[in-house]
Amino acid sequence: MSAPAEALSPPRPAPNAVKAAIAALTAKFGNRLVTSRAVREQHANTVTWIENQPPDAVVFPQTAAEVQDIVRVCAAHNVPVIPFGAGSSLEGHVNAPLGGVSIDVRDMNKVLAVHAEDLDCVIEPGITRKALNEYLRDQGVFFPIDPGADASLGGMTATRCSGTNAVRYGTMKDNVLSLKVVTASGELMTTARRAKKSSAGYDLTRLIVGSEGTLGVIVELTLKLAGIPEAISGGICPFPSVDACCKAAIQTIQSGIPVARIELLDALQVRAVNQYSKLSLRETPMLFLEFHGTEAGVSEQSERFGEIAGEFGGGPFEWTTRPEERTRLWEARHNAAFSCFTLRPGAKIIPTDVCVPISRLAECVAETQADIAASNIIAPIVGHVGDGNFHLTLLIDTDNPDEVKAAKAFNERLVERALAMDGTCTGEHGVGQGKMKYLLAEHGAPALDAMRAIKRALDPQGIMNPGKIVA
Amino acid sequence: MSAPAEALSPPRPAPNAVKAAIAALTAKFGNRLVTSRAVREQHANTVTWIENQPPDAVVFPQTAAEVQDIVRVCAAHNVPVIPFGAGSSLEGHVNAPLGGVSIDVRDMNKVLAVHAEDLDCVIEPGITRKALNEYLRDQGVFFPIDPGADASLGGMTATRCSGTNAVRYGTMKDNVLSLKVVTASGELMTTARRAKKSSAGYDLTRLIVGSEGTLGVIVELTLKLAGIPEAISGGICPFPSVDACCKAAIQTIQSGIPVARIELLDALQVRAVNQYSKLSLRETPMLFLEFHGTEAGVSEQSERFGEIAGEFGGGPFEWTTRPEERTRLWEARHNAAFSCFTLRPGAKIIPTDVCVPISRLAECVAETQADIAASNIIAPIVGHVGDGNFHLTLLIDTDNPDEVKAAKAFNERLVERALAMDGTCTGEHGVGQGKMKYLLAEHGAPALDAMRAIKRALDPQGIMNPGKIVA
Repeated sequence: MSAPAEALSPPRPAPNAVKAAIAALTAKFGNRLVTSRAVREQHANTVTWIENQPPDAVVFPQTAAEVQDIVRVCAAHNVPVIPFGAGSSLEGHVNAPLGGVSIDVRDMNKVLAVHAEDLDCVIEPGITRKALNEYLRDQGVFFPIDPGADASLGGMTATRCSGTNAVRYGTMKDNVLSLKVVTASGELMTTARRAKKSSAGYDLTRLIVGSEGTLGVIVELTLKLAGIPEAISGGICPFPSVDACCKAAIQTIQSGIPVARIELLDALQVRAVNQYSKLSLRETPMLFLEFHGTEAGVSEQSERFGEIAGEFGGGPFEWTTRPEERTRLWEARHNAAFSCFTLRPGAKIIPTDVCVPISRLAECVAETQADIAASNIIAPIVGHVGDGNFHLTLLIDTDNPDEVKAAKAFNERLVERALAMDGTCTGEHGVGQGKMKYLLAEHGAPALDAMRAIKRALDPQGIMNPGKIVA
Repeated sequence: MSAPAEALSPPRPAPNAVKAAIAALTAKFGNRLVTSRAVREQHANTVTWIENQPPDAVVFPQTAAEVQDIVRVCAAHNVPVIPFGAGSSLEGHVNAPLGGVSIDVRDMNKVLAVHAEDLDCVIEPGITRKALNEYLRDQGVFFPIDPGADASLGGMTATRCSGTNAVRYGTMKDNVLSLKVVTASGELMTTARRAKKSSAGYDLTRLIVGSEGTLGVIVELTLKLAGIPEAISGGICPFPSVDACCKAAIQTIQSGIPVARIELLDALQVRAVNQYSKLSLRETPMLFLEFHGTEAGVSEQSERFGEIAGEFGGGPFEWTTRPEERTRLWEARHNAAFSCFTLRPGAKIIPTDVCVPISRLAECVAETQADIAASNIIAPIVGHVGDGNFHLTLLIDTDNPDEVKAAKAFNERLVERALAMDGTCTGEHGVGQGKMKYLLAEHGAPALDAMRAIKRALDPQGIMNPGKIVA
């Protein structure tokens, strides 16, 4: 169990093997297989500073059986397979460092069943979260995980994503009941039954959630749904410091207030949001909050939070149950990522994603802010503070090698700081290519060996999204 | 990936190998290694009708390093290792069908840290849930998972157990943040950081939860805790039928009422509880409920439930926030298993554990009750109705082969019925020896192949609790 990582990744396939695989796939898929440079580049990383590494071809299957066909052809020729959802991932997950075939599931975007009584639904992987919620709207249920971007559900599952309301509804790990997965040998595997819980063997569902396409291709998902709350209240609360924000968040959660969202914005991020969304919020650290429940319940929660905020010098807490006002505030939060560009037009972003135990959050953010100041980087902060997860948006001129170097060094220090506090290098974005180098420090050799042994066991040829996570 | 199951289990080790391992362990552990027949038999299955298969020796380690020593000695001699917690498992998990060394972690029962701000704690595997909650009592937090029995937390994790309040707090899968595990080669593996969430690679934590000692020995656990609710209300509600109970439960959950416990007892189970706990409940199907929240919140929840019950012909719903009254009612529920013996003194029990989507629960219970009646078996029902999970307690004279045969056949039909409804053969008890035969029908060949490949990858010698789950 201690083979080096390189042994797990095959070499780049020979050009003839790629040609043969593409010929075989073209015979099956016709013009649903595309090799134009533009389309191939669109199917590699386009979101962040990570290099664009296009696949050799892109195929658009319409059924699970077609995905099986693609994987079987690629396996026969030892050609890599890279699953592709909406392309919104941030760590180079969709890049093809060894070439290969990108499987774009955009045409597998149907809702197959909604079981409102069971609070679950069965869907194809290409549907996005907004499209799913639009579909569900009239049935009194919704899918709560909200990473901001309108990602595909297959991709969200593959990266174990979460977002602003994970503090109440959990992450993708908590909201997937079962998956259908095309394995590396082209078999169709079902990971679990639709029962709400089970103790029937190894948890294959959770093994696939977060495996980023390295163990198989997700072709069908059974997801948990939540009832649309009777009432929602939301609001914003200014604080004198990030430390006060964090302490108020800890107290809120410890008090058992079932807050649905509790988001930190630092002063710089508030300034960016003001500029982008034409608001006039006080430019001070701030919590954005949302409460879900009954009319009486959300009032009680909102009032209790207001009292807690006051204990830490925060407030006034302005909250409302009026949808249009809530939407206006939360739109500002959702546009936080875009708003950053107003701080430095033309810059590219290097996103960060550490997560620490909540008791260490204030300290981790404070040290990080000092580091930003010393590094002369523009980098506003947003945080899913109820989970101890925060993001910096490093605004970088990627044509300036000194800036890129400084930003990378800053990110290294940030990850080291989080690991020293018993945190993780990625709370929700995933490993992809960008975080592989931190896994040994985070997990230690025995755990990394176990991950590699699992990868070898389930993908002995090493064709499933090579160059990601452990291989 | 299609080796037969037998290939995964080694043959029973040669007597000399066992002797050599025991000699090496005796040199290290002295009188903390025991080979007396009585102690060995206590460390095999003693709870149900499954045969008692004692190990060759029992060792009582005090540290993770000692567990590593034991596993290394056993690995060197190809001798099986069987982890042992409180011995309350129901499917023969602690049996030693090939002999070997039972690792009893009763002396590893310390609380290593409580992080109240983070709502987590770090513990050793041998502490029981009652002892842990006793320890936590003054800190405003508790560990919510409650399987009834005072099981060890290591064992609860190994079987992915849940129990009466999983409907609100989830199962062990949802409440373990990280584990330290001694691997099959004797390494000490840490599965995750203490951060509340992470996307850093394969979910080893969830892979170990529910793996029943077949992939490693759990030697340390970081568990999520919940804040002790400000108020608790509870009560019981009679219904005209099991169907009405199930429909009221569905409506309650769909309405978003965050019920903490919602337990079904059928009329026969109510009779048993009346006899055992000296109560005079109406002998009709009944729901036992508990609500956690603020004073205002639990009142609102209780009243809303009362209204829902009325819609389905149930009620009156008598509820109280007075602890002594709640305790009296819930003691009756907790004593349900023991109370069954009043229905047939001297009988042994065959427990069942299917779980189906909640929309199918009423139908599944109704068909099962008809089957009980036709089979002439005494078998009261309790159900974690919010999760679609229910148990029958088959009261059997195990000296009567006809009865045993009839009970086994009944259980087969029950599992088939649940699987046909997209359910599982085990909601919370685990696979052990008793449920292995159902895994192919439940999961299909590709998933079972994947489980076997993982088993082989992480335990190539097949020494970790052989004869359970897939090997």
